[in-house]
Amino acid sequence: MGAALSLAERGRGRVAPNPNVGCVIVNRGVVVGRGWTQPGGRPHAEAMALAQAGAAARGATAYVTLEPCAHVSPRGPACSDLLAEAGVTRVVVALRDPDPRTDGKGLARLYEAGIETLCGVEKADARRSMAGFLTRQRFGRPHVTLKLAMSLDGAIAMADGRSKWITGEAARHHAHVERARHEMILVGRGTVTADRPSLDVRLAGLEDRAPARLMLSSEDIDVPPGWRTINAPGDLLTDDLPGDHLLVEGGIETAASFLSADLVDRLLLYRAPILIGDGRTLPGFGLADLADAHGRWRACDSRRLGSDTLDVYERVRR
Amino acid sequence: MGAALSLAERGRGRVAPNPNVGCVIVNRGVVVGRGWTQPGGRPHAEAMALAQAGAAARGATAYVTLEPCAHVSPRGPACSDLLAEAGVTRVVVALRDPDPRTDGKGLARLYEAGIETLCGVEKADARRSMAGFLTRQRFGRPHVTLKLAMSLDGAIAMADGRSKWITGEAARHHAHVERARHEMILVGRGTVTADRPSLDVRLAGLEDRAPARLMLSSEDIDVPPGWRTINAPGDLLTDDLPGDHLLVEGGIETAASFLSADLVDRLLLYRAPILIGDGRTLPGFGLADLADAHGRWRACDSRRLGSDTLDVYERVRR
Repeated sequence: MGAALSLAERGRGRVAPNPNVGCVIVNRGVVVGRGWTQPGGRPHAEAMALAQAGAAARGATAYVTLEPCAHVSPRGPACSDLLAEAGVTRVVVALRDPDPRTDGKGLARLYEAGIETLCGVEKADARRSMAGFLTRQRFGRPHVTLKLAMSLDGAIAMADGRSKWITGEAARHHAHVERARHEMILVGRGTVTADRPSLDVRLAGLEDRAPARLMLSSEDIDVPPGWRTINAPGDLLTDDLPGDHLLVEGGIETAASFLSADLVDRLLLYRAPILIGDGRTLPGFGLADLADAHGRWRACDSRRLGSDTLDVYERVRR
Repeated sequence: MGAALSLAERGRGRVAPNPNVGCVIVNRGVVVGRGWTQPGGRPHAEAMALAQAGAAARGATAYVTLEPCAHVSPRGPACSDLLAEAGVTRVVVALRDPDPRTDGKGLARLYEAGIETLCGVEKADARRSMAGFLTRQRFGRPHVTLKLAMSLDGAIAMADGRSKWITGEAARHHAHVERARHEMILVGRGTVTADRPSLDVRLAGLEDRAPARLMLSSEDIDVPPGWRTINAPGDLLTDDLPGDHLLVEGGIETAASFLSADLVDRLLLYRAPILIGDGRTLPGFGLADLADAHGRWRACDSRRLGSDTLDVYERVRR
């Protein structure tokens, strides 16, 4: 399942409104097929892996990060039927598909075809992997990641605004990889005016992955070419935006707006081993009591990037 | 050497002006003696370990975190002589002793007695273990640790001062273990007035390890009983203070004073997975340029404490 989750990453940010799924087919200990949702959403991961496996799919086990679909569409047959036809005898699934067209029906079809099924393997990682799709299904909006680069004392800039550079090269490269995993990137109007950021992906081989650029601005102003405006974080719920993953990059007032609207699902905190003192820190976003701050964020990853660290937190939603 | 370093911790905070040393004696793969500097400074770690080993020291290897002393004192013989007399045939040392009475002379004596010596094993950890002694030798002042408990956005309290609680129970217990490792603890006058903190060690079995209480106050005021005042961080360089380890606990202005004087050697950052927004953060301490902030701190430990994290940084001094 780890391998399937890893393949699923290849589709992330390029397959909306479809989920980015990964699939590995194993026959007697040998990987005979590997697939992932293709750009645009088709073929599905299972179809790709089965095509690769050919006759070797007979008697094999398929590991899929999401329940195989049960619905025939003009764009292709149902994956649960494809798996059965190919003679796969066991299907291991990470997550049940919340899409009402499948939601248990895929597993039921497999079961009816005499295939052994197991669901729930590495569920937590699968949820992270398909966070965009799942957030769209559940809340009708994209999954929102807030990125902050800060010092040990929480400053994102010196008091006069200087922020070049807080984090080092490895952290900045990683932030570009994160851009490539998002269809949309958003900054505040102040950042657009001050920096005219290109927000592209400056990594060899990933230049074509530049996300759509959004600007948060409460007033309707002239938007620079290639930009789109939203007036408030809540517009994510109504606007028809391209994709299921939004990366909020700054400035700090924009960050506070999204936190205030409780529209941040994931925090990317790049932290440099420096102290600034009297720096620009996160403005208030409506916290009334310290007790209310607790239980909202759960650490899910932490890594060293050069001399900096990256800590990732996800919003706990019940 | 790891075991010797671990034993050395037992003396930390109770043996000044002596270094807290650990010693393990191994004969044919069997540990025959373990020692650490005793409260008050004597017996030394080697003497204790040799006494325990008895005749089994003959032909054995001794692992010592600091070069065995070369000076005979009214309080006891030189450890390098003791090791030779006991018939130890190999001595592995982590760190050469900077004390001019030894400084290479201990190793020389061992060598002259025909003992195989090796110096420099696990040097970095030994430096951390004896940071108090080494800072006193090099700078004529205690080693200073600054403790801060903060949110992800660097707030040590809400804007109105509320700070109960930011971190959880595990982090607060750990902070009490840190108190027990220091002979002195310091807070600012404001903290004393507002909180009347007891600054004791509330951990079973360690109640007697309460550090001496110091208050930072620029004015000479009436000091509460059991407290001692220093007027400025620089007084650490001149005052005759009890011990080699000082823990600075707050408030945030006091923290800034010590940072401003560049008298912080180690940062203990307890961080809760919460965002506060518009909170109290570290005041300015004289940083002129972002580039100057870099290269000063090195991460040396990071651990989870319940849902909080502890990150430890040490000041890089060349």
